[in-house]
Amino acid sequence: MDSVLRHIRRGSEELLIEAELVEKLKENRPLRVKAGFDPTAPDLHLGHTVLLNKLRHFQELGHEVFFLIGDFTGMIGDPSGKNATRPPLSREQIQENARTYQEQVFKILDAEKTRVVLNSAWFDTLGAAGMIRLAARHTVARMLERDDFAKRYGKGQPIAIHEFLYPLCQGYDSVALKADVELGGTDQKFNLLVGRELQKHEGLSPQCVLTMPLLVGLDGVNKMSKSLGNYVGIDEPPEEMFGKLMSISDTLMWRYYELLSFRSEAELAALRRSVEEGANPRGVKAALARELVARFHGQTASARAEETFAARFREGQIPDDLPEIALAAEGADGLSVAQALKQAGLVPSTSEAIRLIRQGGVKADGEKITEPQGRLPVGEKSVILQIGKRRFARIRVFVR
Amino acid sequence: MDSVLRHIRRGSEELLIEAELVEKLKENRPLRVKAGFDPTAPDLHLGHTVLLNKLRHFQELGHEVFFLIGDFTGMIGDPSGKNATRPPLSREQIQENARTYQEQVFKILDAEKTRVVLNSAWFDTLGAAGMIRLAARHTVARMLERDDFAKRYGKGQPIAIHEFLYPLCQGYDSVALKADVELGGTDQKFNLLVGRELQKHEGLSPQCVLTMPLLVGLDGVNKMSKSLGNYVGIDEPPEEMFGKLMSISDTLMWRYYELLSFRSEAELAALRRSVEEGANPRGVKAALARELVARFHGQTASARAEETFAARFREGQIPDDLPEIALAAEGADGLSVAQALKQAGLVPSTSEAIRLIRQGGVKADGEKITEPQGRLPVGEKSVILQIGKRRFARIRVFVR
Repeated sequence: MDSVLRHIRRGSEELLIEAELVEKLKENRPLRVKAGFDPTAPDLHLGHTVLLNKLRHFQELGHEVFFLIGDFTGMIGDPSGKNATRPPLSREQIQENARTYQEQVFKILDAEKTRVVLNSAWFDTLGAAGMIRLAARHTVARMLERDDFAKRYGKGQPIAIHEFLYPLCQGYDSVALKADVELGGTDQKFNLLVGRELQKHEGLSPQCVLTMPLLVGLDGVNKMSKSLGNYVGIDEPPEEMFGKLMSISDTLMWRYYELLSFRSEAELAALRRSVEEGANPRGVKAALARELVARFHGQTASARAEETFAARFREGQIPDDLPEIALAAEGADGLSVAQALKQAGLVPSTSEAIRLIRQGGVKADGEKITEPQGRLPVGEKSVILQIGKRRFARIRVFVR
Repeated sequence: MDSVLRHIRRGSEELLIEAELVEKLKENRPLRVKAGFDPTAPDLHLGHTVLLNKLRHFQELGHEVFFLIGDFTGMIGDPSGKNATRPPLSREQIQENARTYQEQVFKILDAEKTRVVLNSAWFDTLGAAGMIRLAARHTVARMLERDDFAKRYGKGQPIAIHEFLYPLCQGYDSVALKADVELGGTDQKFNLLVGRELQKHEGLSPQCVLTMPLLVGLDGVNKMSKSLGNYVGIDEPPEEMFGKLMSISDTLMWRYYELLSFRSEAELAALRRSVEEGANPRGVKAALARELVARFHGQTASARAEETFAARFREGQIPDDLPEIALAAEGADGLSVAQALKQAGLVPSTSEAIRLIRQGGVKADGEKITEPQGRLPVGEKSVILQIGKRRFARIRVFVR
């Protein structure tokens, strides 16, 4: 039981309530494990896979996963009209998105132990009366305790009443599915607990709630997100994915191992030990990159990506063990490439650096820089700057 | 137009927005006038008829009345389970109640110009999605501005979320009916205004809102209500009704004329003048009682009730013009009959009064008093106390 709980807790933020989960596990039956997903077209990055990996852990332990697509609310869109970017989706679009989800998520989940369900199955027949009965199950004051509602209400920002209905709908999904466990991000905790209450009210055994942290992006600072540009999309080409993963810091690497790798805790402990005893972290990072690229593109593509990555460094004659130079930026907008070249000692002046960039003689991570005003962002990720064939520097920019 | 508006405004509390109503009236078409009623078994008293009388005014002006029975929410009951006295009603019970309503209300409304409608007609097909869209039309903050919600929220008393949906349902009724005017009690103002907003959002001309005051009960102090015992039920026997109406104060009589009588404003003005010029208010009160009893029981029954009433006074030899004696009570629980008899000078002492009551020799409004500790309530209504055949006093009790 202890090792089962350790597997379930690995990388997670919070488990409510462990004693109840232990009781459920003791029943020796496949538990019904639920996670909800948007009905919009999936375009998953590694951040999204943290939850999928946790679902996979449950599958490995013999439990049944319900991959719930919230198509009911998706077909409504944003009825307040305030969020024009959330137009209602048609039943066909949602079916199509569900298919795309399956293509993507079955690279992680075991299709045999996964049931993909749409919540329109129960909401289409609930009716207006059923929605009123559902709304009767919660009070306004309790709902206003939810962090984001409390903040908006406090600031006098409008909260439309239907926003109070969505957590109840999510909770009702758990009633309909008789979920034993629901997984979600830490920001979902309130909604997951609503499910517990609704189940209790219906005389069901309340679900346990397991929250997962948000994955930090390649910069090591912000959560992984498309708009911040610090992400690895699971549909990205193998070489791109490999290169991005090799750019993360040695510290962040361990967090990625914990949340993204399928290796056992014992294997992770062994890797840590090896680095502590002097092994090059670069090799351990390459092993992680290999594993993740193989997951989404297969072993062959992964091996090819590693070769390409290595070859690029060979061709550029970039030394394998280039030391990292940390450069201070004045603000969050990073450092100009020209200044970085000067401070790293590759050029005598920034004007010389700008001249070289204009001539096309400067590369960053093997790509020619074309913009003389180009900047290096602040973050954990290092960049290799190169002038001609012989001058290199591995730069990381931090805020002073 | 002025006289039309005067007719509409007669007795009312507030009209929103008069200019819009004028525009609607100028369109020279029958306006759609809506009022909503509970689906519970009707047991109407005169207080309820204030609204019905106002609907009748609209019918007199040629408009169409929608008598809306809120059966949809009635079939849900109180889903929070807090109000056990509001169990869900079956479709059959509601149909039965609708029939009873028609028996009762068509004593006031013109059946030809009345459409009885049930809101399940549109809510049964709205669906859970429609309810969410409806909920999106209003904000939490605006809803919490409603007086009773604000008070309960302020005191930390729970408000279930479905309570926020009911005003929206009432408003949606106005959308479905394309109502031009909605009538309600003063306590309904917030909900009536929600209807305006929903209509605007649907691109409809917003309804005008006319609120009616609550009718003061026979005591002249509290609103007419069954639980306070100060009411006249419209199903009460003619004699009972006549007697109760004759007991109201001369001041309250005019308010009743304004809100309950079908006499024109000109006739009312003439009656007021006659009393000012010395006519006995008792005769004017009798005319009101005759009108109201005739409305619910017919002319013949009304005339018989008046005779019975007069005969009781003749038999009891109660003088027609007995002056009213106002007696001060120390508190809201009124005055004991024994004290009243002494203070009115009918007996020398309260112990004598108690002795007479025990002997069965004291009557109040013609009924034998059996309880020596009996009390007279505080209020506008006077009571005739009688000892034997010759000693009378007309008593009104007030708080010092």
